[in-house]
Amino acid sequence: MSLLTVGTVAFDDIETPFGKADRVVGGAATYISLAASYFTDDVKIVSVIGDDFPKETLNYMESRGIDMEGLQVREGEKSFFWAGKYHDNMNSRDTLDTQLNVLADFDPVLPESYKEVDYLMLGNLTPSVQKRVLDQLKERPKLIVLDTMNFWMDTALESLKEVIGLVDVLTINDDEARQLSGEHSLVKAAAVIHKMGPKHLIIKKGEHGALLFEGNNVFFAPALPLAEVFDPTGAGDTFAGGFMGYLASTQDHSFENMKRAVIYGSAMASFCVEKFSIERLKELTDEEITARIVRFVQLVNFDAKLA
Amino acid sequence: MSLLTVGTVAFDDIETPFGKADRVVGGAATYISLAASYFTDDVKIVSVIGDDFPKETLNYMESRGIDMEGLQVREGEKSFFWAGKYHDNMNSRDTLDTQLNVLADFDPVLPESYKEVDYLMLGNLTPSVQKRVLDQLKERPKLIVLDTMNFWMDTALESLKEVIGLVDVLTINDDEARQLSGEHSLVKAAAVIHKMGPKHLIIKKGEHGALLFEGNNVFFAPALPLAEVFDPTGAGDTFAGGFMGYLASTQDHSFENMKRAVIYGSAMASFCVEKFSIERLKELTDEEITARIVRFVQLVNFDAKLA
Repeated sequence: MSLLTVGTVAFDDIETPFGKADRVVGGAATYISLAASYFTDDVKIVSVIGDDFPKETLNYMESRGIDMEGLQVREGEKSFFWAGKYHDNMNSRDTLDTQLNVLADFDPVLPESYKEVDYLMLGNLTPSVQKRVLDQLKERPKLIVLDTMNFWMDTALESLKEVIGLVDVLTINDDEARQLSGEHSLVKAAAVIHKMGPKHLIIKKGEHGALLFEGNNVFFAPALPLAEVFDPTGAGDTFAGGFMGYLASTQDHSFENMKRAVIYGSAMASFCVEKFSIERLKELTDEEITARIVRFVQLVNFDAKLA
Repeated sequence: MSLLTVGTVAFDDIETPFGKADRVVGGAATYISLAASYFTDDVKIVSVIGDDFPKETLNYMESRGIDMEGLQVREGEKSFFWAGKYHDNMNSRDTLDTQLNVLADFDPVLPESYKEVDYLMLGNLTPSVQKRVLDQLKERPKLIVLDTMNFWMDTALESLKEVIGLVDVLTINDDEARQLSGEHSLVKAAAVIHKMGPKHLIIKKGEHGALLFEGNNVFFAPALPLAEVFDPTGAGDTFAGGFMGYLASTQDHSFENMKRAVIYGSAMASFCVEKFSIERLKELTDEEITARIVRFVQLVNFDAKLA
């Protein structure tokens, strides 16, 4: 099944307690599409870059079967750039610099072959840009997932709410769920957000795992406790890519399968954080992914021995 | 199997975003013994109170089968008192006041009938007081669990390390595990702490659940997402009480059974936070406890569908 990914393809400067990486490849659509490419071979991308983006990375993405027709390359311009520094706990970070560059006036134009996709992942972007993508589709995809962040809640709440009202699954972090809903309890926050439109809500808690809400059903997936968390950048997007890739490959939107998709997303995210940038996502094997799923089973599995 | 609980029996002033409670019953041994009393009928307590502690609470504890012979009552003196205020996120708090009172020179004297217990839960206290309890035992219990906190790491690290070296299970929170081990990664922290003595380490993460480490084995139990978390005071002790009570009732220290014990502890803690003080722990039924275990199963259970 085809999966369209919309989001940034960009550069990051990253500083963590364990090291520093300058001008490495990043961007939501980069992480999402690469993670998804391990599950489905029909991944398309809509994004924009300048002429400064490394050809090798584009070639690598194509080699993983990612359709790059929707990637706009602007000659003489620069790609989106973000610089951030992680705190010691690695679960929070400061933005040191943001240079929109080509993203400032990004108009996501869908090639004809992109207008009838089965699955749509709207990575974190201006809500009106996310909406522009929806407006160009000939048919509603089987499943639309939207990722966003507190910045849009602060600066564009009404247009954000409009686009949230049009999607099936919303992915945000715990603080954002609280901000969007006005409720401290995540259970209450989920109920408020369900009423805004999305049938499913995924609350990402970084090193503390992720919660999947579907009405009164709740599922919790832990983050894998790792000896080395090198760089959390892209973990949320990698999670979304694994989640969407698994759903696109199984075409089953039952709660049971959504749970599996959350585990596959968590497994992909657990690889992402082991190295800077997309390095760890470039060298994965199916065997490694399966072995990591087994570790998640072992991590949470218990026999309650109820009569 | 007999379970000896050592810890405070005290008063708390508590302020949370949802309300305020003055001079309510608290204390580690209170929460631990009550939670354990739902699993085993041979719970003994060693603690000290002034003559200001409510007779009704003591009578209630006795009515739940808790042996109070080891509870010292000091006439004309006051019970230990703690006042705290929770932050909006409920996962952190400030101590507003601590009055040691009878705890200042507490010497835990074990009655003869306490000196051959099967299970020992050393609640958070001065490490030298915890050690004094161990010194009075005629035989080593089948399992010794120790709870402690950052305060003792700051002020009495050497005597804390001595007593940690004598126990089977250590329960601390994530920040404390990092402080004690000098490692940020909880996986690495667990390896360092195992070398200090305890075969098992439980890292409590409040609303983010708990991790159980046994060598290279790791198990994660989430906290139950609740619509209302009224007051987290005592949740960690209630967890320990449920954990120990379950182990004392099953006498099985395999990793599989430890996992179940962690889930039972988490279930008991999820009740504790629903009301102030010990109120919710006073009205539980076996049916409610079983129903909550079922909710934990539903929360984390998934079928990986691996070949």
